[in-house]
Amino acid sequence: MNVFDAINTRRSIRSFQDKPIEEEKLQRVLDAGRLAPSAKNTQEWRYVVVKDAELRRKVAVAANNQYFIAEAPVVIVGCATWADYILSCGQLAHSIDVAISMDHMSLQAVEEGLGTCWIGAFKEDAVKKILYVPPEMRVVEIMPLGYPKFQPDPKPRKPLEEIVFYDKYQ
Amino acid sequence: MNVFDAINTRRSIRSFQDKPIEEEKLQRVLDAGRLAPSAKNTQEWRYVVVKDAELRRKVAVAANNQYFIAEAPVVIVGCATWADYILSCGQLAHSIDVAISMDHMSLQAVEEGLGTCWIGAFKEDAVKKILYVPPEMRVVEIMPLGYPKFQPDPKPRKPLEEIVFYDKYQ
Repeated sequence: MNVFDAINTRRSIRSFQDKPIEEEKLQRVLDAGRLAPSAKNTQEWRYVVVKDAELRRKVAVAANNQYFIAEAPVVIVGCATWADYILSCGQLAHSIDVAISMDHMSLQAVEEGLGTCWIGAFKEDAVKKILYVPPEMRVVEIMPLGYPKFQPDPKPRKPLEEIVFYDKYQ
Repeated sequence: MNVFDAINTRRSIRSFQDKPIEEEKLQRVLDAGRLAPSAKNTQEWRYVVVKDAELRRKVAVAANNQYFIAEAPVVIVGCATWADYILSCGQLAHSIDVAISMDHMSLQAVEEGLGTCWIGAFKEDAVKKILYVPPEMRVVEIMPLGYPKFQPDPKPRKPLEEIVFYDKYQ
């Protein structure tokens, strides 16, 4: 599957089959994230890959009771070390770097026939406690991973004319 | 090219050929960004696509004199509206959403035979002034886009064992 097809067929999946993920597929998804670029090549991402059913349930509860998260056989919890580094443009490096790395994963998942969903609605302290993530680290995004029950329709997107400007923003 | 090959052959390109980008390639790269997911489907990304040579030079100067940026025939400046929205996990939504969208672009660029580089080292206020970006918006990343002069060697990455933990961070 080429890159554009993966981007175009990716959906936010909120309903997963009760079917395990082949280990080689999971490893390729993680490897896709591993190969991502990061500020100063810091690679500050750390991933807690949650397979244990009771821990998945606890993470789903900490994610504002989004129970579908626990349906997925694997829940990838994207964390960051070196979390106070600010780029000279004013952005937190780890937020951008972890997002790039997890986006790699989400597109590789499509290629593997798997589905994901970006979850930013969760209680960070609760997730840290459940997974023993040290306080000085950040938890950036949670991404359930599994075989989708079905392919949802695409969500609407603004046309390019609304989001792209040439030479000057106007 | 499949997703994994695009991820695996992507490099940070800091040297560009003096060769224009075919318009249909540029539009597919932008479209790849347009199709990205975002918190509440906000699509808060706005892109200033800088083609004018003098403006590219000014942006390169504002990016701490990284002159190679101006070598690229196109410089994509990733901005965000709705920049104060904080996800319940504590992260700024726009930083993550713009990173996801620009990561889509960077991988589509590979598929098109083009190169990119993530630039987070720039003076945000100066870039805003050059491109007439309103003060309440943010400039998140700058991404030069063009045909690479050469394919650099891959940078080292930590092995999966250093960045992936199962069920608990330890």
